[in-house]
Amino acid sequence: MLSDQQTGAVAEQDVSASREPGPATLADRLARLAGQARVIGADVVLVAPGADLHYFAGHSVGSHERLTCLVVPADGEPALLVPTLERPGWTGSPIEAMGVPIGTWTDGADPYRTLVELFRDGTRVIAVDDHMPAVHAVNVRDAVPGAELVLAGEAIGELRMRKGPDEVDQLAAAGAAIDRVQRRVGEWLRPGRTENEIAADIAAAIVAEGHARPDFVIVGSGPNGASPHHEASDRVVQAGDLVVVDIGGPLPTGYFSDCTRTYLVGSRADADPEAVAVYEIVRAAQAAGVAAVRPGATAESIDAASRAVITEAGYGEYFITRTGHGIGLEVHEHPYMVAGNVRPLEPGMAFSVEPGIYLPGRFGVRIEDIVVVGADGPVLMNNAPTELVELPA
Amino acid sequence: MLSDQQTGAVAEQDVSASREPGPATLADRLARLAGQARVIGADVVLVAPGADLHYFAGHSVGSHERLTCLVVPADGEPALLVPTLERPGWTGSPIEAMGVPIGTWTDGADPYRTLVELFRDGTRVIAVDDHMPAVHAVNVRDAVPGAELVLAGEAIGELRMRKGPDEVDQLAAAGAAIDRVQRRVGEWLRPGRTENEIAADIAAAIVAEGHARPDFVIVGSGPNGASPHHEASDRVVQAGDLVVVDIGGPLPTGYFSDCTRTYLVGSRADADPEAVAVYEIVRAAQAAGVAAVRPGATAESIDAASRAVITEAGYGEYFITRTGHGIGLEVHEHPYMVAGNVRPLEPGMAFSVEPGIYLPGRFGVRIEDIVVVGADGPVLMNNAPTELVELPA
Repeated sequence: MLSDQQTGAVAEQDVSASREPGPATLADRLARLAGQARVIGADVVLVAPGADLHYFAGHSVGSHERLTCLVVPADGEPALLVPTLERPGWTGSPIEAMGVPIGTWTDGADPYRTLVELFRDGTRVIAVDDHMPAVHAVNVRDAVPGAELVLAGEAIGELRMRKGPDEVDQLAAAGAAIDRVQRRVGEWLRPGRTENEIAADIAAAIVAEGHARPDFVIVGSGPNGASPHHEASDRVVQAGDLVVVDIGGPLPTGYFSDCTRTYLVGSRADADPEAVAVYEIVRAAQAAGVAAVRPGATAESIDAASRAVITEAGYGEYFITRTGHGIGLEVHEHPYMVAGNVRPLEPGMAFSVEPGIYLPGRFGVRIEDIVVVGADGPVLMNNAPTELVELPA
Repeated sequence: MLSDQQTGAVAEQDVSASREPGPATLADRLARLAGQARVIGADVVLVAPGADLHYFAGHSVGSHERLTCLVVPADGEPALLVPTLERPGWTGSPIEAMGVPIGTWTDGADPYRTLVELFRDGTRVIAVDDHMPAVHAVNVRDAVPGAELVLAGEAIGELRMRKGPDEVDQLAAAGAAIDRVQRRVGEWLRPGRTENEIAADIAAAIVAEGHARPDFVIVGSGPNGASPHHEASDRVVQAGDLVVVDIGGPLPTGYFSDCTRTYLVGSRADADPEAVAVYEIVRAAQAAGVAAVRPGATAESIDAASRAVITEAGYGEYFITRTGHGIGLEVHEHPYMVAGNVRPLEPGMAFSVEPGIYLPGRFGVRIEDIVVVGADGPVLMNNAPTELVELPA
């Protein structure tokens, strides 16, 4: 069984496996990864199951503690090592169609010894993907005398952060799917219900609207909204509450949605007047961050644009997060919209713009859209309205 | 949002947070981990979010790419570092109640520099938990001049593989929950339905019967059963199929279930006569493996006991996996029932016994129960019948 996939929840929909990258795309990605290896001075790059393997192999199965690993030398041909019992899962995969050799190892054998046999002579500097479990990274290092272990994450990020047209299509489909859920939140978010009850309904809708599974369902009502990563609790929603709803998950193709809206339960007359004012400040800050998106602007300038609005309104100390994160085959990936990141934005980069104001013990407001850098400015992947929605109490 | 937890799917049930380990249990575990650090010659052990952190801190939140890390020195007091925005999630946690200092770092800062400030002077050998993402392990190594990076997994396994009474209670509750699902499989497994449809119904039942979420739902019908890690597909189940159903997930407390039964759709008259014979061989092999469980028996002897039955029946080459894996806060953990593992079993060790026969292109049979080593022999966590169940066609 594969604990990182949940078969049962996969919905049928038209964003299907037929949209997975073909051999030509993968061959290009692998060649560019070998180029990145040469840039960072690595003899080989190793990629374990997860989003990176999905990106380079068009497929990712496994793997609890059993080693599955893509081997991409700086010079030479790539190879894949998989556990024998998972070999059938690679039958018909793009990587097989490309003619990449797929080696196997069987329970009881030492997979690291088998892996090292796939390396070219003289391999010394081994770069591993950022997510590879330490057990694999360290054991591979120890199987190569004199090896040096380094990270491949930034080199891989150089490739993954620039989305191709098919990837942008996937992010748009994901955005449309989560928008449909946000537009339906009023069906479930009502006074007298607990955050957990509401979150369970939203989770089901995330699947019903086309995601493979819900990945996160944050329902932060009243004071719980002031903790940015609160999930859901048995707190009963009350009239007058602001409620942060931050939700998303992957499509069957692996591309993620991520969208936050903050709702008012009841009318403005029920609410803390400051809450309504804070909402409009965050809305303006979010719009300012989005408006700053264009090729050549730095990542940190998006953070600065949103932050300036909040700081000028006097709430700077309550905006306690960065403004955004890249998104694609992971919900958080490069590039990050954070002070100190002077990387210039380029067309195809995709990330969230999600400023917030969090008043401890009182309430929180966050508004989040996914944006792709277009040639002339921002292209929004989310289109649910950002005006304050007042839900019937 | 926290992608490794799915709030919406958490069911209410009596195996609740009140059964989480208290400060006394955690203090004992932390002291024993420091002792293990001294045994392996490490100056400090670092534990990232996941099952290991759950075990030692009674709680595990986070964390995409943001560093959360428990610091356990070989000599000295432990400490925890968390991202500022996740600090509220640790309020009221056992680790806070124990007085373990909880440090924070904020977006934009270098978390590795902050982490290293928690180390004692002279820290050089850094042991990390096996699951820690390479990005954290390598970056911490690079933040300490002259550091040596080693693995803590086996040292941690020494503690985690011996379950305490409360942990055995959790495994028994998990076993009872998944048994209830197995007893209901006939509600969903019928000819004319696809594996995916059946798996979706089973996934919902896994939650309805008390799990936090489904972790894996394998429905391998007919020839698909011959691939041990096949999940589910659009294959339509037919009368005469053997169907491998391997399912499980964590309770809200984090302890896992894992149980496999193989069903016959229709009557024996519909089935390949060899399939029925193979079923009985696997059943005998599984019973032999369970019967071999007692303190002092080696892990590999459990594998040998099951394997002997299958080999003597002439199917040895079709039993292509090890016989079992440990289970607890992870679905696969130490100890492994595999040739070469001469570790003597001890009371409290918990693992699966799951031999199988896989005939490529034809069918597969696997039967799996979780067993705890008792003072006098095996204690079964699963009690669903192992006789061949013929489901109405």
